[in-house]
Amino acid sequence: MGIWFSEQHTKNLKLSVKIKEQLYSKKSYYQLIEVFDTEEFGRMLVLDECVMITEKDEFMYHEMIAHVPMAANPDAKNVLIIGGGDGGAVRELLRYKTIEHIDMVEIDSEVVDVCCKYIPQTAAMLDDARLSIHYEDGLAFVRKTKNTYDLIIVDSTDPFGPGEGLFTREFYGNCYKALSDNGILINQHESTFYDEYAQAFKNTHKKLSKVFPNASVYSFQMPTYPSGIWYFGFASKGIDPIKDLDEEAWNDLKIKTRYYNTDIHKAAFVLPNYVKELLDE
Amino acid sequence: MGIWFSEQHTKNLKLSVKIKEQLYSKKSYYQLIEVFDTEEFGRMLVLDECVMITEKDEFMYHEMIAHVPMAANPDAKNVLIIGGGDGGAVRELLRYKTIEHIDMVEIDSEVVDVCCKYIPQTAAMLDDARLSIHYEDGLAFVRKTKNTYDLIIVDSTDPFGPGEGLFTREFYGNCYKALSDNGILINQHESTFYDEYAQAFKNTHKKLSKVFPNASVYSFQMPTYPSGIWYFGFASKGIDPIKDLDEEAWNDLKIKTRYYNTDIHKAAFVLPNYVKELLDE
Repeated sequence: MGIWFSEQHTKNLKLSVKIKEQLYSKKSYYQLIEVFDTEEFGRMLVLDECVMITEKDEFMYHEMIAHVPMAANPDAKNVLIIGGGDGGAVRELLRYKTIEHIDMVEIDSEVVDVCCKYIPQTAAMLDDARLSIHYEDGLAFVRKTKNTYDLIIVDSTDPFGPGEGLFTREFYGNCYKALSDNGILINQHESTFYDEYAQAFKNTHKKLSKVFPNASVYSFQMPTYPSGIWYFGFASKGIDPIKDLDEEAWNDLKIKTRYYNTDIHKAAFVLPNYVKELLDE
Repeated sequence: MGIWFSEQHTKNLKLSVKIKEQLYSKKSYYQLIEVFDTEEFGRMLVLDECVMITEKDEFMYHEMIAHVPMAANPDAKNVLIIGGGDGGAVRELLRYKTIEHIDMVEIDSEVVDVCCKYIPQTAAMLDDARLSIHYEDGLAFVRKTKNTYDLIIVDSTDPFGPGEGLFTREFYGNCYKALSDNGILINQHESTFYDEYAQAFKNTHKKLSKVFPNASVYSFQMPTYPSGIWYFGFASKGIDPIKDLDEEAWNDLKIKTRYYNTDIHKAAFVLPNYVKELLDE
C-alpha cells in the first residue's frame, strides 16, 4: 500500500492521500511545515498536519479569493494580504494591471522560503516589483494602518494555532479602519457541514456582521478540504458583491481562468437552506 | 483508534469513517450490502464498498434528485425510478400531491429489505399506496414501455457492477421513448475532479446529448462522495430546467427543504470553466 498521509477532518473522519515522496518536513517557530509529492494532487503543502494547498486544486481557492472581490471593485489599487505565504493569491491579483501595490504580511518566513523552493506553481510571482512582503504579525500590522487599502484578503489557516487572532472581532474592526470607503475584506470562512467547522462559520459571520454593514459568504469546490466545499467571507463598507458586479467589464479584461467566471461569481453567493439557517441563528 | 471503514475514492485517495457498529453485511445475488452505524454520519448504506447514503447527508442527494425536475415540470404525474432502493427519492416525490403514481424498478430486493429494516429515515414511505415496486432489471423494464412517464429518475450506483447498463446510449434511447412529450430524465452523472469520474461524466453527457435535444448537468454538495461535489444529468424532450422553472409556483407549494430552494436550482446549473471544458471536449 505504500506511504499515506492522513488528515483528520473531524474526530471521526479522515482523508488519506498516497505519497510519492516527502520533500520537506521541519518545525518552524510557528508550525510544522511539510511538503509532499503525491500521485493524485502533485505537490502538497501541509501545515500542522492540515492540507493547505495542492498543485491540483489550488486554482479553485486562489481564483475565488482574488477574482470575486476584483470583479466587484475593479478600481482596487492597493491590496493587503494577511497570510498567503504560498503566493497563490498574489499570483492571481498580479494579473490585474490596475493593481498598483500589494503588501503581504506573513508571520512565518519559512512558509515563503519552502514554497519558493518546492511549489513554484503558486510562489513564482513572490519577487514581483509590485509586491512587498512583511514578515510580521498581521494583527499588529493592521492595527497601525488607517484608510489605506481597497482590498484586504485574509488568507489564513484555521481558527486555531498561529491564525487564531485573525478570527476575532477586534481584528475585523482594525481591518474596517484600514480599508478605504470602497474597501472589501475577504476572509477565511471555514465550512458548514461538520459541526466543528460550522461553529467557526457561524461565529465568524456573527463577528463580521457586527463590524461591517455588508457581510455575506460565498462557496467554492475544494476537494482536499473537509466536506469538499469551502467558504470565504465578503464584507464591505458599501460595495455589494452582486449589484456592483460589472460582468462585461470583468469579461473584457480577458483573464483566463479555470474555475472562476462571472456566472460562478453570482452562483457562489446562493446558499442551501441549511447554510442560510446557520447564518440566521 | 477503533474500527474504521475506508472507501477508495481513487487509487491514491481514500476517505475513512469511524464505525460504531456493523449492523448488516451480506452478499446478495448482485452485490455486497453493508449497513454501519457511525459517529459522524449516523447510519450508512454501503454497496460493494462504496458509500451510497448516510443519514446525515442524504437530504442533499434526494432533494436535488426530486425537486429540480418537479419544479421544472410541476405537472408530472407519472414517475419511474430506476434503482433508488433506499427509498429517499420516493420519499421526496411523494411530497407532491399531484404525483399520481410511481413505479420503482430495483434490481436487488435485498437492498429494499435492508433499508426498510435499518434506514427508515429514507425507506419509511416504501409502503405508500401511490408506489409500485418492481424487482427486475431496469433495462428490460424501460425497453417495454412507450410514452408513459413524465419523469424518469435513474438513481443508480456508479457505471461499474450492477449499474453498468444504465450508462449506455441504448438505455437512454429507451428512456426517451418511455417519456411523454414533456418528459424529463434525471440520471447519475458522477463528478468532475478526479480523472476516473470525469471520464464517466464526459461519456454520460456525450451519450445523453445524442439522444435528447436538451441535456445539461447540475451540481450539489455531497460530502461523503468523491471530491464532495456530485452531478445529476437533466435531459428532456423540450422542457428547459431554467426557463421553465416557475419559482413562485414551487414556493407556493410550501415544501420544507433543507438543501433545495429555487435559487439553488438556478445556481446548480452554473458550471466552473474546467467543467464546461469537460462537457465541450
